[in-house]
Amino acid sequence: MLLESLLKNYTKTREQTEKLCQPLHTEDYIPQAVEFTSPPKWHLAHTTWFFEEMILTKYVQDYRVFDNDFNFLFNSYYQTVGERAVRAQRGMMTRPTVKSVYQYRHYVDKHVQELIRKNPPKDVVSLIILGINHEEQHQELLLTDLKYTLSLNPTNPVYSPDANLVSDHNLDTKEAIGDKWITINEGVYEIGYQGNEFCYDNELGVHKVYLNRYELSTQLVTNGEYIEFIEDGGYQEFSHWLDEGWTWVNENAIHCPLYWRNIDGVWYYYTLAGLQPVDRDAILSHVSYYEANAFATWKKMRLPTEQEWEVASSQIDWGKRWEWTSSAYQPYPNFTISDGAVGEYNGKFMVNQIVLRGASVATAHGHSRPTYRNFFHPHFQWQYSGIRLAK
Amino acid sequence: MLLESLLKNYTKTREQTEKLCQPLHTEDYIPQAVEFTSPPKWHLAHTTWFFEEMILTKYVQDYRVFDNDFNFLFNSYYQTVGERAVRAQRGMMTRPTVKSVYQYRHYVDKHVQELIRKNPPKDVVSLIILGINHEEQHQELLLTDLKYTLSLNPTNPVYSPDANLVSDHNLDTKEAIGDKWITINEGVYEIGYQGNEFCYDNELGVHKVYLNRYELSTQLVTNGEYIEFIEDGGYQEFSHWLDEGWTWVNENAIHCPLYWRNIDGVWYYYTLAGLQPVDRDAILSHVSYYEANAFATWKKMRLPTEQEWEVASSQIDWGKRWEWTSSAYQPYPNFTISDGAVGEYNGKFMVNQIVLRGASVATAHGHSRPTYRNFFHPHFQWQYSGIRLAK
Amino acid sequence: MLLESLLKNYTKTREQTEKLCQPLHTEDYIPQAVEFTSPPKWHLAHTTWFFEEMILTKYVQDYRVFDNDFNFLFNSYYQTVGERAVRAQRGMMTRPTVKSVYQYRHYVDKHVQELIRKNPPKDVVSLIILGINHEEQHQELLLTDLKYTLSLNPTNPVYSPDANLVSDHNLDTKEAIGDKWITINEGVYEIGYQGNEFCYDNELGVHKVYLNRYELSTQLVTNGEYIEFIEDGGYQEFSHWLDEGWTWVNENAIHCPLYWRNIDGVWYYYTLAGLQPVDRDAILSHVSYYEANAFATWKKMRLPTEQEWEVASSQIDWGKRWEWTSSAYQPYPNFTISDGAVGEYNGKFMVNQIVLRGASVATAHGHSRPTYRNFFHPHFQWQYSGIRLAK
Amino acid sequence: MLLESLLKNYTKTREQTEKLCQPLHTEDYIPQAVEFTSPPKWHLAHTTWFFEEMILTKYVQDYRVFDNDFNFLFNSYYQTVGERAVRAQRGMMTRPTVKSVYQYRHYVDKHVQELIRKNPPKDVVSLIILGINHEEQHQELLLTDLKYTLSLNPTNPVYSPDANLVSDHNLDTKEAIGDKWITINEGVYEIGYQGNEFCYDNELGVHKVYLNRYELSTQLVTNGEYIEFIEDGGYQEFSHWLDEGWTWVNENAIHCPLYWRNIDGVWYYYTLAGLQPVDRDAILSHVSYYEANAFATWKKMRLPTEQEWEVASSQIDWGKRWEWTSSAYQPYPNFTISDGAVGEYNGKFMVNQIVLRGASVATAHGHSRPTYRNFFHPHFQWQYSGIRLAK
Repeated sequence: MLLESLLKNYTKTREQTEKLCQPLHTEDYIPQAVEFTSPPKWHLAHTTWFFEEMILTKYVQDYRVFDNDFNFLFNSYYQTVGERAVRAQRGMMTRPTVKSVYQYRHYVDKHVQELIRKNPPKDVVSLIILGINHEEQHQELLLTDLKYTLSLNPTNPVYSPDANLVSDHNLDTKEAIGDKWITINEGVYEIGYQGNEFCYDNELGVHKVYLNRYELSTQLVTNGEYIEFIEDGGYQEFSHWLDEGWTWVNENAIHCPLYWRNIDGVWYYYTLAGLQPVDRDAILSHVSYYEANAFATWKKMRLPTEQEWEVASSQIDWGKRWEWTSSAYQPYPNFTISDGAVGEYNGKFMVNQIVLRGASVATAHGHSRPTYRNFFHPHFQWQYSGIRLAK
Repeated sequence: MLLESLLKNYTKTREQTEKLCQPLHTEDYIPQAVEFTSPPKWHLAHTTWFFEEMILTKYVQDYRVFDNDFNFLFNSYYQTVGERAVRAQRGMMTRPTVKSVYQYRHYVDKHVQELIRKNPPKDVVSLIILGINHEEQHQELLLTDLKYTLSLNPTNPVYSPDANLVSDHNLDTKEAIGDKWITINEGVYEIGYQGNEFCYDNELGVHKVYLNRYELSTQLVTNGEYIEFIEDGGYQEFSHWLDEGWTWVNENAIHCPLYWRNIDGVWYYYTLAGLQPVDRDAILSHVSYYEANAFATWKKMRLPTEQEWEVASSQIDWGKRWEWTSSAYQPYPNFTISDGAVGEYNGKFMVNQIVLRGASVATAHGHSRPTYRNFFHPHFQWQYSGIRLAK
Repeated sequence: MLLESLLKNYTKTREQTEKLCQPLHTEDYIPQAVEFTSPPKWHLAHTTWFFEEMILTKYVQDYRVFDNDFNFLFNSYYQTVGERAVRAQRGMMTRPTVKSVYQYRHYVDKHVQELIRKNPPKDVVSLIILGINHEEQHQELLLTDLKYTLSLNPTNPVYSPDANLVSDHNLDTKEAIGDKWITINEGVYEIGYQGNEFCYDNELGVHKVYLNRYELSTQLVTNGEYIEFIEDGGYQEFSHWLDEGWTWVNENAIHCPLYWRNIDGVWYYYTLAGLQPVDRDAILSHVSYYEANAFATWKKMRLPTEQEWEVASSQIDWGKRWEWTSSAYQPYPNFTISDGAVGEYNGKFMVNQIVLRGASVATAHGHSRPTYRNFFHPHFQWQYSGIRLAK
Repeated sequence: MLLESLLKNYTKTREQTEKLCQPLHTEDYIPQAVEFTSPPKWHLAHTTWFFEEMILTKYVQDYRVFDNDFNFLFNSYYQTVGERAVRAQRGMMTRPTVKSVYQYRHYVDKHVQELIRKNPPKDVVSLIILGINHEEQHQELLLTDLKYTLSLNPTNPVYSPDANLVSDHNLDTKEAIGDKWITINEGVYEIGYQGNEFCYDNELGVHKVYLNRYELSTQLVTNGEYIEFIEDGGYQEFSHWLDEGWTWVNENAIHCPLYWRNIDGVWYYYTLAGLQPVDRDAILSHVSYYEANAFATWKKMRLPTEQEWEVASSQIDWGKRWEWTSSAYQPYPNFTISDGAVGEYNGKFMVNQIVLRGASVATAHGHSRPTYRNFFHPHFQWQYSGIRLAK
């Protein structure tokens, strides 16, 4: 990547994060609704901390950190039991103020931009690109975490009425009606990232897999199709569910996707544009893996494996929802973990999580590719996660 | 009370609440650290809701509520299981904004002041006085809740460096050194509020009690005395403790009062003026009933009953700390509960709580009297609660 | 007490415990249903441990303990965090076997009986009498704990069809119908144990109290009266309940006394004679303090204080149910704690518990007196606890 | 299988279960230590229930069930929230007695043996074989559950001093010292059961997989090697651990394999022959997946996938420990779930579990094959689970 292009990309990404925060009041920057979400202020600061701690303090001579406390407050990596307590208390950190965090961002931006202009060595460029991708990931989390927090407010606040900034529940085109399937033949296929651009460590290590013949739907499941599952008693019939899914449904009294509410027999959902009637033709989102799996079982079909998805990806139109696969998140053959904090990035999460493929309406432009492996615990619903069937 | 005086009192009280918030940033108004604390914004709004809901909507013709949602959001009385969930989520309510809440306050103030000027009937005056006292209680909670939240911030933020606004750990005069005791003789005494000013329902019903001869210390326990208890292994010796106190100590790894930290062998505590070395001559605060009781047992003394405290109150200098008594919070003979929401005020809490007498450095001026009964669960430490010994 | 009489009393008490176990299978001796109950085997062994550890090892020269492990296994006093873990695992202790525990009992019995015959000094006699009373308390717990465990078995097992061994739900005479009240006049009364027989430390310290005029019902509340409360929606109306009682009701989905089940609109309860239809004329039992208090509030009456109960006790017919008072369990004036393990007996529990007065159908004959103070946490229902109203 | 052989196999399996219980006292049959274990009595009854409910009631005309209650009590399949409560209370079921359960076994045995002699149709034979395999699985669980329960007893009870009945920690031959590895070349391999004998549904569906070249150790990790990991601070260094493993270690204060205790610097472990010093040359067992994975990471190696294990299985000597693989438990291609209760057997557990391959010292003779897929949650330690390294 030419420096010019890197500088432009860095600047655009940093500006985009702040643009996502434009509709917010100062108050909105603070709360952490549950441990797995983070406040907007924390996302703004943590992504900045990454550039300061991983790059500026190491590669810029005489660099003076913006504030020594920030390293402690916005570091998500340092691993001790104590730190975990702090993780659950991100919403308590009223100081530094939002204004200070923006000053922190601009201070760091100025220094990173200067560094880029000085033509840094290749490994520094790589770290900057990693930082940009890291920030793009947090842009998505910022939106999905924010939605979760705002949804708890009984007044159903509107983040933005502008459906173009981040369309919550539909896009210009609705999902086509009808049954359309593509078929992939049995054989040996190659999996993993083969290009020269950025990718994460968990996509590396191109390797062969043997796939049986399979069919994949060209369409994502719609809200209307999922309502059929609900109305057929899907949440009451244990035979559709994985054993742990059934426990999850019952212990948490789950009876619909996250954000859905049944008001006098009509389905509504909370969106970033406020409370809206559920659009039956729009693509379903905010289901857990347990729900995705149960729906597929009810349909007498299944979810695709991540390998099946990747091999077929060029023949489907993806990018609107994160799509649950049936694959547990595990290392590719020859996967190795980098040294140091960067090495903590992906490998240590490879247990009890499920791979999602694709990208969602909340994903940053350009932050997607067919080999991208996202992953969450099977009970999480707060991403824009949807269902594509295989058989 | 003359209307002029009521108006002045109302206005002063309402202004005082806002004055306590002057040092805050917008961010500080938001978090709810634990379920038993509330955010500053909630205190500001809830005390206002009391005036609007209990008085304006009932006694002012054609009154238009400021915002219908506020009744739901800032009502702490409405009793359903659903409501309790909301109680734990006061820190999630980023909207209405802090600015809106101040507008709400001023809108309600204008209408209450108008109502007072119109010479309302006696029962309305009583409700206004109840509202003023209710707000004074919340001023104290606002400070103690705020201290709790700020204490969680690793940067030990300063609420106010001005020791005169709210002195956290000492007052002009330190506690006198030495052993000073007063003696009360055996006999029948009268307990309960006998004046014509405001008091709470739980102070009413003057009644006789029979007391044995007892002695009461004229002094509150100091930090230095409590450090002796710590250094003598007080937290490690179960025979000093109530059985549930011992469980509390061990399950929560308690080894000192709340906000105390031992850094390299030196005791510090977090105060509203930041982290400070513990002043050994200053009066102890932030101990639970379990700790107060264990300290007294270690001293081979005991805590006074609330009746002993009340009878002796004219002979001691009180008002710096809330003082744990040994009395469970129970109704006085002939206690009756008022109808409606006001009736929920005190009676329903009369189980599993301990009475505290006196007043603390955070108590509003004028909001104290010898018959005042405060009460908390025995494990709570976040009030300015101290120890006075009896024998 | 003459030695002859002591020997007889000791032997009879020890035999009675074993007689209560006669209907049991070996399997029944093992489970601990919840932490606050203990297995029959543990009761058999722990009461024996008391005699061995507190008396034989200290006052019998060359006494050889039956088994060194037993001291550790059946000691309920030794206070460490580790011990509490063991407390919850009494049901895991399959060894020593039931047979060994009976051998332990008989070994200890032989030595205690020899000791009694040797005319031991007065303090040893006092300890033996304490041990007898301690065992009588455990007889009651053995029955109520056993009932709790058996009630969890879907087959509703019968402990004994013989209603005379331990009548679960009725006695020969049912409660009289109608309103009968006695009146006690205002004045100073004496409280506390004044005799020369055995009593517990918490009954000691005769002292004066001042009581207002009050009335006490001569009758205990019946099942039929309580069903009226249920049918009037008593469990759904929060204004009857203490705040913590209301939380308890909702979090635990309580809608009737313990052991009651509504089968097709008819009330049944599990008894030691199996599942039975609720007898409306029989005396209510197995209610918590929260339920007793809510029932009294619904009746527009109240529960008596323990002092009111004690003063009126000679004028009422008590002894069928433990009766909830409104008094928190607190020390009498001049209460002192004995040294050593015996001193742990009562004082350390004096917080968050409510006093019950009287005695129940499960209480050992002779193990009751007007000054006896039983106490439990307000949510406990598994004793034969009932309601007597005051006003 | 000839009927003669089936009859013999049935009878031998049923007798073997009872033989495993010979050293038990009646008391030992009762407790359920934690929800994931079951009491011996339950294992004895549940395996019998399988034959009665799945076979006798369906295929034997006029069959009279032994006791109607048993169907409810010993059915582990019926899926409702209510049932789960019952699952945690298996240790409370003192009735039916152990003696009744043995009578139940012999009653059912008589009828199954009669049925076999009558030459039942093939699908009934299949169900009987399934029942035999089901019982063999429970034999293993009976031993491992029993070990867990007995280990909680502070007296370290001996199940059997006879090391040949079930050797806990070593076998005749100890593990060879030294580094021995086999190599498997890259290519397409077939996975899944191909024989004509019994196998579970999760082994079916022979399919091709593509494997990269890999090496597998011929030896299992020994206690001595694992002690090196401990002594090198393995439990204190987060970089060895999966993120959830690190949380598990810290929240549960794990610092060694299950049953290990460090007494004055010397390692001991509880075995079914009582407390023993750890034998450094014996094969390690009772480690979780988290520990196995951390050990492998520390060794700069890895665990094999289940496919790698299966392909190499003919070249290694396995059968002493269940061996953790790195594979999440997921369905083979074309896996289908049978109808009815039998269909609940395996498929519904295919999330959040890890595959183990091999067999352990507690596995029934004949109940193992190279394609067998055992599976447990990654934190479980109570099976005889060990480590084989790959690279």
